[in-house]
Amino acid sequence: MTPDPLNRLVAQLAKLPGIGEKTAQRLAFHILRAPGEYAVDLSLAIREVKEKVHLCVRCFCLTDSELCGFCRDSRRDERSLCVVETYSDLMALERTREFKGRYHVLHGVLSPLEGVGPEQLRIKELLERLNDSRVEEIILATNPDIEGEATALYLTRLLKPIGLRVTRLAQGLPMGGDLEFADQATLAKALSARRDL
Amino acid sequence: MTPDPLNRLVAQLAKLPGIGEKTAQRLAFHILRAPGEYAVDLSLAIREVKEKVHLCVRCFCLTDSELCGFCRDSRRDERSLCVVETYSDLMALERTREFKGRYHVLHGVLSPLEGVGPEQLRIKELLERLNDSRVEEIILATNPDIEGEATALYLTRLLKPIGLRVTRLAQGLPMGGDLEFADQATLAKALSARRDL
Repeated sequence: MTPDPLNRLVAQLAKLPGIGEKTAQRLAFHILRAPGEYAVDLSLAIREVKEKVHLCVRCFCLTDSELCGFCRDSRRDERSLCVVETYSDLMALERTREFKGRYHVLHGVLSPLEGVGPEQLRIKELLERLNDSRVEEIILATNPDIEGEATALYLTRLLKPIGLRVTRLAQGLPMGGDLEFADQATLAKALSARRDL
Repeated sequence: MTPDPLNRLVAQLAKLPGIGEKTAQRLAFHILRAPGEYAVDLSLAIREVKEKVHLCVRCFCLTDSELCGFCRDSRRDERSLCVVETYSDLMALERTREFKGRYHVLHGVLSPLEGVGPEQLRIKELLERLNDSRVEEIILATNPDIEGEATALYLTRLLKPIGLRVTRLAQGLPMGGDLEFADQATLAKALSARRDL
């Protein structure tokens, strides 16, 4: 008895990650009750993001022009290149305001079980990009999990022979963390990578 | 540095109830990565729901034609009319498959604090509808909370004098409930409304 357009919207919303049938229904009712402009604005924003946003031709982060803001900004240090798995990781790094270099987004990690090999990632493009570039250091900022570590190791073996400095984000206890509740692997890493004061 | 269309989509998604900035970002990335049809379908579904779905002219539930399916279906019992607060409540009742009568959606409850009086609800329309209708019983299915109770009481005073049977959904322990953990008010209701076996 539910009107078809409402069913269709609920079905489409329920395809979003983390949105179940119930939540989709609540969102659909909200859209229905909200002022008319909202539905138009939301609908337009969804279409535009798909039409206008694409990958930067150099670093493969998201942009609505040919080169992204990071690649165009001449104030950013060309000698330092940070390799990340996803655009979300890039944004997390940007929020720290600590890194002033350029980025390269792999769009995934090596994962033989899921059929992701080096060809599926932007690794070939990374190597091409390093030809006559001014990059001196590559920071491998893949996640500190099994697949991220494997990807970092794979990249290290490719990049070291070129004569670049290859670094990895430090691993250890998180700020505000608690030794008592730290997992074994983290605590072991923190111990073996202890610093002189 | 985030492309504008992405920022706009995140802003629009974050206006949805229960969707914060982080979730909005996750949803936006999903829409961006999903196949092209999905963005088009979702965008269309949002626009259509707003353009095509409106209130049934008789019972004020949601429909995409003039009269809703409940009002058009001649197999539904015209003698029994169930008054609910919202369309979601109507759907919950329908899921039980127990009620075969018609509905009337008030679109809210009396709430003096929030400035909702009888004029803001579909009460005038309910009374008009009862003129030369075959309704014999009105089931007041507003929520069993303070405002729902007050609305039911208000409606009872209006409807009893017309000579209709006015009933209210039973209150008591929920199925599968536990006496030990039932709140005082529910347990007191269950006790005073005890049934002979």
